[in-house]
Amino acid sequence: MTNRTHRTGGGRPATHHEVRLTGRPQGPLTDDLFEVVEVPVPEPQSGQVLVRNTTMAVAAVMRTLMDEATTVPMPSFVPGEALYGSVVGEVVDAPGTDFTPGDLVEHNFGWREYALVDADGVHRRDRDQLPDPAAYLSQGPTAYMGVVRGAEVRPGDTVFVSGAAGGVGSLAGQIARLRGAGRVIGSTGSQRKADYLVGELGYDAAVIRGAGPFEEQLRKAAPEGVDAVFDNVGGEQLQAAIALANRGARIALVGALSNQLSDSGTHTTEIDTLSLVARGITLRGIALYDHLELIPEWNEVFGRGLRDGTLTFPHARLQGIQEAPRALRELVEGRHLGAVLVEL
Amino acid sequence: MTNRTHRTGGGRPATHHEVRLTGRPQGPLTDDLFEVVEVPVPEPQSGQVLVRNTTMAVAAVMRTLMDEATTVPMPSFVPGEALYGSVVGEVVDAPGTDFTPGDLVEHNFGWREYALVDADGVHRRDRDQLPDPAAYLSQGPTAYMGVVRGAEVRPGDTVFVSGAAGGVGSLAGQIARLRGAGRVIGSTGSQRKADYLVGELGYDAAVIRGAGPFEEQLRKAAPEGVDAVFDNVGGEQLQAAIALANRGARIALVGALSNQLSDSGTHTTEIDTLSLVARGITLRGIALYDHLELIPEWNEVFGRGLRDGTLTFPHARLQGIQEAPRALRELVEGRHLGAVLVEL
Repeated sequence: MTNRTHRTGGGRPATHHEVRLTGRPQGPLTDDLFEVVEVPVPEPQSGQVLVRNTTMAVAAVMRTLMDEATTVPMPSFVPGEALYGSVVGEVVDAPGTDFTPGDLVEHNFGWREYALVDADGVHRRDRDQLPDPAAYLSQGPTAYMGVVRGAEVRPGDTVFVSGAAGGVGSLAGQIARLRGAGRVIGSTGSQRKADYLVGELGYDAAVIRGAGPFEEQLRKAAPEGVDAVFDNVGGEQLQAAIALANRGARIALVGALSNQLSDSGTHTTEIDTLSLVARGITLRGIALYDHLELIPEWNEVFGRGLRDGTLTFPHARLQGIQEAPRALRELVEGRHLGAVLVEL
Repeated sequence: MTNRTHRTGGGRPATHHEVRLTGRPQGPLTDDLFEVVEVPVPEPQSGQVLVRNTTMAVAAVMRTLMDEATTVPMPSFVPGEALYGSVVGEVVDAPGTDFTPGDLVEHNFGWREYALVDADGVHRRDRDQLPDPAAYLSQGPTAYMGVVRGAEVRPGDTVFVSGAAGGVGSLAGQIARLRGAGRVIGSTGSQRKADYLVGELGYDAAVIRGAGPFEEQLRKAAPEGVDAVFDNVGGEQLQAAIALANRGARIALVGALSNQLSDSGTHTTEIDTLSLVARGITLRGIALYDHLELIPEWNEVFGRGLRDGTLTFPHARLQGIQEAPRALRELVEGRHLGAVLVEL
């Protein structure tokens, strides 16, 4: 593989790079599951948009989509083909469409430097709405949906966010605060991340996974129980959240990282359903593809919050498409704070 | 014990009977856990209501309340004291209150022939609203709450009711039908009850617990999946319901009979939380004490349905307070169809 592209005249290169899956993971992710390949830059037909991708995001769901059979209603990645995922870029050429070269757009064909996309799969973005176009790749829509529709956070609530230092969780806690939460508690995997949650992201307390019985730790952080839960993780963290849930608590289930990011393939949690009955607790599974209409609302909220300083966009940025496999591997390994982006 | 009461003049006896708990169950319910005791009929003070109880209901929650520690926010029964529970009766004497002798009332001091109740714990009932005063003891409020607020049954839904032949389930299926459900499936414990569900209660199909792998049976009965679930049972039946839940399905958790009525003391179900996320499934624990304001609405609906023949009130009736312990034991053993009432 080379990381240099062949250019023809007119600023558009003849070739670019894409990342292909080479096989299905059997255990921990390794770099040889990915291959960076040089391919020709395609030529758009009428109704198609050629986009120069500038920044892509990696996300936990991509680990799930590397498996052949998943419970997620999205197509699995296919060995021998390029992966896909959210990306922002600039329109290069768009014959027979409403797009103009230079337009800032978002679409779902990341993991490549140039993408050819049918016009109806391309979404125009506003350069003035968010201070940084890469912020369109935040997992804020998922966080916002989970806080507002899933956990229905209300003023004064004690809120628990699991996986709080990740791309989703690092925004969920901030959004809960913005919605008037009285106390926000986050869980994460290390003291460094716990310090970050409390010091930088405005969490009131952080609980470290593995640093002792989880329920006991959470009880210390939430002596009066929890009213709303944003659950990214499942497993013992969800069990602890249920044990501490107050009457009428709402628990948004937005992920199951404890299993998604493990290699066991199981995602089950033992739940005492009678305690859900007795305390009127709701567990609401919620996924963004059922709530896409929230995205513009979130972008409004996010732009305002970034500008007035009430929200921040925690993220790491890696440089170059050849780093994309490492970005996903390190996301799975929990090495980063916030979203993980790759500049293409 | 005797079942005869000593009477003084004026129609009010000097003594009556109450049922006391003698100890905590260690295994299956036995009659020696209960004792029928003759005690004086109490004298009401101003603000108190003396009620001659006429019909009481037994319910699964009473088995739970026989244990010392429960997850239900209601006081456990106390050894040496009378049990309590829903009952209808007639006011005998009510000095310094709005009640008049002869008023039909409902209150929570069953398991005795006469009850002395503070006026604010006594609820007047309308002799013209329901054709049979005992129908006020139906578990319809729980069924109605679960169908309307928990499972949010909508026209055309395929609905699954577990524990469908019990006091709650036998009404839940009928209510689902009344709300426009397209297909209603119930589970129960025997062929006799299954025939009753389909033949008498208007279920489209019945699944028999223990007659084969539950999920496979349910899949045959609901080849297009389920949209709304009324779960009385938990365990494998809830797992099967989740496996067959369509996108956006609502699952009301109203009980956990699989464990409440067993002696294991555990109430856990292994749940694949990622599948709840992926399909946007809601599990809503719901209990009547948080939705008491639905009771008058239900009584309206029930009275109309009983009169026009769109609803029936399946129940068994035992005669005499000395039968109350057997009524509860037989309820737990699943011997009856519908509600189990005792004429006092």
